[in-house]
Amino acid sequence: MALNEPFEQWRSVVALAGGVGGAKFADGLARCLPAERLTVIVNTGDDFRHYGLAISPDLDTVMYTLGGVANVVNGWGLDGDSAQMLGMMKRYGDDAWFGLGDKDVATHLLRTQWLMQGVTLTEVTRRLASALGIQARLLPMSDDPAPTLINTVEQGLLAFQEYFVHQRWQPTLQAHPAPIVYPNNVRATSQVLDALQHADLIILCPSNPMLSIDPILNLPAVRDAISQRRVPCIAISPLIGGQAVKGPAAKIMAELGLEVSANGIAQYYGNLIDGIVIDTVDQRTSNSKQTLATDILMRTVDDRARLAREVLQWITQSANP
Amino acid sequence: MALNEPFEQWRSVVALAGGVGGAKFADGLARCLPAERLTVIVNTGDDFRHYGLAISPDLDTVMYTLGGVANVVNGWGLDGDSAQMLGMMKRYGDDAWFGLGDKDVATHLLRTQWLMQGVTLTEVTRRLASALGIQARLLPMSDDPAPTLINTVEQGLLAFQEYFVHQRWQPTLQAHPAPIVYPNNVRATSQVLDALQHADLIILCPSNPMLSIDPILNLPAVRDAISQRRVPCIAISPLIGGQAVKGPAAKIMAELGLEVSANGIAQYYGNLIDGIVIDTVDQRTSNSKQTLATDILMRTVDDRARLAREVLQWITQSANP
Repeated sequence: MALNEPFEQWRSVVALAGGVGGAKFADGLARCLPAERLTVIVNTGDDFRHYGLAISPDLDTVMYTLGGVANVVNGWGLDGDSAQMLGMMKRYGDDAWFGLGDKDVATHLLRTQWLMQGVTLTEVTRRLASALGIQARLLPMSDDPAPTLINTVEQGLLAFQEYFVHQRWQPTLQAHPAPIVYPNNVRATSQVLDALQHADLIILCPSNPMLSIDPILNLPAVRDAISQRRVPCIAISPLIGGQAVKGPAAKIMAELGLEVSANGIAQYYGNLIDGIVIDTVDQRTSNSKQTLATDILMRTVDDRARLAREVLQWITQSANP
Repeated sequence: MALNEPFEQWRSVVALAGGVGGAKFADGLARCLPAERLTVIVNTGDDFRHYGLAISPDLDTVMYTLGGVANVVNGWGLDGDSAQMLGMMKRYGDDAWFGLGDKDVATHLLRTQWLMQGVTLTEVTRRLASALGIQARLLPMSDDPAPTLINTVEQGLLAFQEYFVHQRWQPTLQAHPAPIVYPNNVRATSQVLDALQHADLIILCPSNPMLSIDPILNLPAVRDAISQRRVPCIAISPLIGGQAVKGPAAKIMAELGLEVSANGIAQYYGNLIDGIVIDTVDQRTSNSKQTLATDILMRTVDDRARLAREVLQWITQSANP
């Protein structure tokens, strides 16, 4: 393989991502592939308004990560950010439950203002990502509001960030009538559908399947586009040894009676995926998916690139036996 | 005079104020009078939207000053504030010409959100001032948008902050048809009119007469309420030795062909005022106003209280000869 043409077989790689885990793997891909061959489609089901600001947590996490400006301790937010605004909010009697750094506020102010002017979220994201020097294509799944709701035993339906951040995903999911509600009538953007139709490789990043990937898959035409494709689609497990690397994936799967393991992830995605990447600590099981077992925990930036490279090599070998 | 009842003759003191100079004198009054006897009416002609935020520079300067949280170097903004948000704005390609501290943004976010919910600016200001522990009554002159426009030789009409901050008040005012345009149909609030009607002492703080005090005076019913009153109305000169302590007062008066002096200030206010407070460096002139000459430069917090005390003593003596 020529150094200048890494993984030249894959001309159009599309990754679906949520927050921190997805962002890290997407960044790994960006470090292995020429920018023009990578599109990252990001969940916006967790977007919400706070202090009147239009906040897109997953989109920002992916953007800051790809831009090399993310806070490496949290995974989200900006490196070197401060919390003076939130401190003043507390002085005004607000409980300031949602972490908004001072630099971070600039992102939300520009987004809010541009959306109010009628600019699409896709174009807002393009402008912000471009200013941060991001060359891969970063696409919100939709330009429509697409608020995911969580159905809890304790409190019924909760807005996503109320469940996820304010109550630190402690409420229990309730399976009936549905544990997670994705709003109807949300349209994938034409850019998203176009990217999927022209993809020659689709990757479900190590994000929460229910909270981060399903909001994308459940958009009309998206699941069909992936199901009917003739190109490989693989997932990277967000679970290692039955534990989520970050967030409530394991807790939610247990609450829904699913097998809490990498195998459970493969079963959950079912026929949508051709293969799954799991950690070496996890057992290969009897499921018929092709499986790559490797170290999937991304501690460092180098880990991201190493994992992405291994995944691309494995897919290349599997596709060219 | 009993210590517990300072200046007991004045049960309802109303001060009209603009930005830094007015804020300092209003703070001096707040240090001399029981809070329930002081109302400060603040110019909102310099209010504007920036990054979608509803910003009230004069109101915030007075509020931060009375709250004891103002930046003492600038006179405006919050003590110990930082500029991370603006730094990020620059990274996004914005020129960040208007100073907005990170803590300061909290004020604007809450104001913007509450205004959008239909809360009046008067009530927004009450909530914010109350949280900062301010006990004197702080009133915006109006709940209506009241944007002052500046008519310049070089560029015609300019929005106030475009002239004042972005172009650092360098353009030259043009007298015809009018150097400064105050919008019609802006209503003083009922709280403002009520305070003026019940005032037993009215003070025009050392603010720019054209840019800060006139927007208040030019509201329908305000000038009449002050003209027809039977209570003392005095002004403190914003000029010392023919120079503005801060801002463009002297430059504007020169451009308009007015006498650039404390005497010129007295002439400008004309019959509206009964007396004027000038600096000892300035000459008492032949104008018929009662005049107090003292050190009117407020360098320290103690200066504010000392000047306010001297002014109140002088008015008390003048009213009780």
